[in-house]
Amino acid sequence: MKPEGTLLLRRSDIAALLGIEECMAAVEQAFSLYAQGRTTPPGILGIHTAGGGFHIKAGLLELGRSYFVAKTNANFPQNMKRFGLPLIQGVIVLCDGENGYPLALMDSMEITIIRTGAATGVAAKYLARPAATVATICGCGNQGRISLRALAEVRPLTRAYAFDIDEQQAGRFARELSQELGIEIKSVNDLAQAVAESDICVTCTPSKAPLLKREYVSPGTFIAAVGADSEEKQELEPELLASSKVVVDLLEQCAVIGELHHALKKGIITKADVQAELGEVIAGKKAGRTAPDEVIIFDSTGTALQDVAAAAIVYEKAILSGKGVVVDLGA
Amino acid sequence: MKPEGTLLLRRSDIAALLGIEECMAAVEQAFSLYAQGRTTPPGILGIHTAGGGFHIKAGLLELGRSYFVAKTNANFPQNMKRFGLPLIQGVIVLCDGENGYPLALMDSMEITIIRTGAATGVAAKYLARPAATVATICGCGNQGRISLRALAEVRPLTRAYAFDIDEQQAGRFARELSQELGIEIKSVNDLAQAVAESDICVTCTPSKAPLLKREYVSPGTFIAAVGADSEEKQELEPELLASSKVVVDLLEQCAVIGELHHALKKGIITKADVQAELGEVIAGKKAGRTAPDEVIIFDSTGTALQDVAAAAIVYEKAILSGKGVVVDLGA
Repeated sequence: MKPEGTLLLRRSDIAALLGIEECMAAVEQAFSLYAQGRTTPPGILGIHTAGGGFHIKAGLLELGRSYFVAKTNANFPQNMKRFGLPLIQGVIVLCDGENGYPLALMDSMEITIIRTGAATGVAAKYLARPAATVATICGCGNQGRISLRALAEVRPLTRAYAFDIDEQQAGRFARELSQELGIEIKSVNDLAQAVAESDICVTCTPSKAPLLKREYVSPGTFIAAVGADSEEKQELEPELLASSKVVVDLLEQCAVIGELHHALKKGIITKADVQAELGEVIAGKKAGRTAPDEVIIFDSTGTALQDVAAAAIVYEKAILSGKGVVVDLGA
Repeated sequence: MKPEGTLLLRRSDIAALLGIEECMAAVEQAFSLYAQGRTTPPGILGIHTAGGGFHIKAGLLELGRSYFVAKTNANFPQNMKRFGLPLIQGVIVLCDGENGYPLALMDSMEITIIRTGAATGVAAKYLARPAATVATICGCGNQGRISLRALAEVRPLTRAYAFDIDEQQAGRFARELSQELGIEIKSVNDLAQAVAESDICVTCTPSKAPLLKREYVSPGTFIAAVGADSEEKQELEPELLASSKVVVDLLEQCAVIGELHHALKKGIITKADVQAELGEVIAGKKAGRTAPDEVIIFDSTGTALQDVAAAAIVYEKAILSGKGVVVDLGA
């Protein structure tokens, strides 16, 4: 069957199509397939520029149908101030993995946020204590919102703390998410205090210096370190990694652009100290949490596997529901 | 200024917008900027699959305005037979290099063919004998056509030989191009004879074994080796490289996926034996042809620099002429 064209999907189309619950299931499966050696290893390519840079992530998954994704994300930290444009912008090219046909072109923003939140949720499902009820969200933007939604899917949360350098943003987050999720959420100024009282902490800020210190963290806490996805980004004190059980999304990638990279550079941890890749825990090849008092860190740098998993859902639902516009680019 | 949307351009839009002459000028400039260290080094990423693979090329050029391109090309050799789809398909994402905004999404087929032909023409301009009048085109598809057009821009061609394993294709090529370019073109079965009589030979086939042998080539010939752009592809006998002056588009890339790679593997040449990158010859940093009887080979693997140069022309002309459709992907 020769396809009729390439489907164009805008950010709002994707937001309407992709739910966190289904995305978590797909991301969980993708990591598992990877750990079982049933996927092509995903790839990454970066081009740095004066004011920012471009990051390309590419991967392939066999999901009944074979799907390939190349995601180009631009990351320009001064964008809002200088141009009134988002920090991160980009495009996902979804192709048929069997014949290369470009099935869809999608805005990348929503998928990146949701698939990243989905990985946080999946990691929490396997690595947080089953009875975890209190979470701190450090960084109250879109990524923080989806992170809390994902956590609420897998743990019986009753309370959350919202921390942001922009206090108003934390306040809005607390009001809106507490209504949406039906749990108590407090915006806080004291990150140390909030984390000490939490079973789970998600860091998802653009920070370039450690903001989560080892001394803040109580035994048994699960930490999802989401913000660091390039060499210069960092949210965790390296000593916190050295004293915790560390699970990564992709070992080699985290060793270059994740929190792991900073701890390796400081020489206080080795790659051999890393407990597992998340997929290995999901697939049952390596242990996740083995004691209630372990501090476990998930180093999340983001992989094309997540993008493929999420984009495939979006595409299949868009086709079924008739969303998007079709263009025959090859004509 | 916040852009209003992303411009979509189909293959036919691009064919109507991009001329070989302007593309040659842009590609020449791009290689020169690169050789002068005035560009970010371009990048490449490959994902192999059972039936083919995906290749991503990314690069950035400052051309008055800063442009970034990520090109995703799918390469599935059995596509026509199995799916009625082209061997190569793909999408170019053109972004503003200063803020990352996705300016345009373009079909990649036409740009890939034209920018590759443009590099052949630019290489011939610097490396073929000035009085070259006879050319052999080995591989009479779209790439062969654009190659001959590009050669005709830079050398006073009077005759060409068209060789293809599909004789009918060679015949059509000879008829159509001879009319278009006003030169004598003969389709031939004897590649050795044709090459022996030629000043220039372009190989642009999907071959995986050497078809151009050292013994075919007369002194003074310029050869553009265009087909090989992945590890398994090969058109030239490695001994031909070892006995010729070799100029490459990108040294490190040719050492992995070009003709150079096969000669290196055979141990009959070293990277130090390579005369220059094309940009170094254009920029006057290294010598090109220094004697009329030198055999010179241009190993063309294709670079994102060419894609950026070509896509920028297409985009600017499309904006001026109102071609294409605008979609606000971020909406």
